[in-house]
Amino acid sequence: MEYTENLEEKMIASEEIFDGEVLHVLKDTVELPNGASATRETIRHKGAVAIVALTEEGEIILERQFRYPIAQVITEIPAGKLDHIGEDRLAAAKRELEEETGFTADNWQVLGEYHPAAAYSDEKITLYLATGLHQGERHLDDDEFLNVFTEPLADAVQEIMDGKITDGKTQVAILKAAKRCL
Amino acid sequence: MEYTENLEEKMIASEEIFDGEVLHVLKDTVELPNGASATRETIRHKGAVAIVALTEEGEIILERQFRYPIAQVITEIPAGKLDHIGEDRLAAAKRELEEETGFTADNWQVLGEYHPAAAYSDEKITLYLATGLHQGERHLDDDEFLNVFTEPLADAVQEIMDGKITDGKTQVAILKAAKRCL
Repeated sequence: MEYTENLEEKMIASEEIFDGEVLHVLKDTVELPNGASATRETIRHKGAVAIVALTEEGEIILERQFRYPIAQVITEIPAGKLDHIGEDRLAAAKRELEEETGFTADNWQVLGEYHPAAAYSDEKITLYLATGLHQGERHLDDDEFLNVFTEPLADAVQEIMDGKITDGKTQVAILKAAKRCL
Repeated sequence: MEYTENLEEKMIASEEIFDGEVLHVLKDTVELPNGASATRETIRHKGAVAIVALTEEGEIILERQFRYPIAQVITEIPAGKLDHIGEDRLAAAKRELEEETGFTADNWQVLGEYHPAAAYSDEKITLYLATGLHQGERHLDDDEFLNVFTEPLADAVQEIMDGKITDGKTQVAILKAAKRCL
């Protein structure tokens, strides 16, 4: 769409609320398109990557992981935060896949970008499709606990359609990978 | 999966960092499955709804909206936060669709649940498919600026595959609606 969109908000003031390990919270004041002002509570995040790792047999690698905010063990594709803002995203994807699952991959394609919650977070997750897999040893961080398993890509699609997989990046990445590969 | 998963983290302490209009930020200390402790920075959110509103001609209603955290105008389906924790989600979906687009709908189906960022937010978005549409007047909040348009569902799927739609809930809801309806 190339038409003019008068929708932009301009920052007037920014207050730092919290500078944590994962979340950087700001409370900003913005000027709206009509000249009025409003408050925007915003998370700054380093960014992340997530990977659909597809075997020659059409299976993908999944993880079961406890997610403290929702107090549930959920099914997700391998994923991880960038080490620092601006880190090479493909390098991060290769690292996270190997650390969490032990797998390396010969072929990497970008499946797309994913903004999980653009209303209040600047996080961008780059989604990858990895093929030509080789199994090695996994190397979890000390505070990381997760179970790794594989299942057919088509079964994971069905679990998404049935509402059994609720994780956002996992739904997007698997549905896009299935449209590309199945 | 019914096997035992020893993955749970137990809250030891919780510190309130910020209690804002949209974001409630906590810094909790948890006990890991191995008995060690770790910090979890967590957003509490009221929850939200998002709607794929599909016309009889196979078009869906989309919005262009400026998202301050990412400083971009992006394409999204109609969506909005619950007014309060525990609000009836279908009622919220009907309200948000009418406020933002002017449309009401005769038929509502749940497309699924979406956890945008389960690593650090408890937000859950319920995704709906609305059909049997009737056009009325829209009633935006004072600080809400967005442009509404329609396009074929199939075109929106292609824009997702081409990486032109990056909003998470929008990607999930459209891909699921297309698998169900196209």
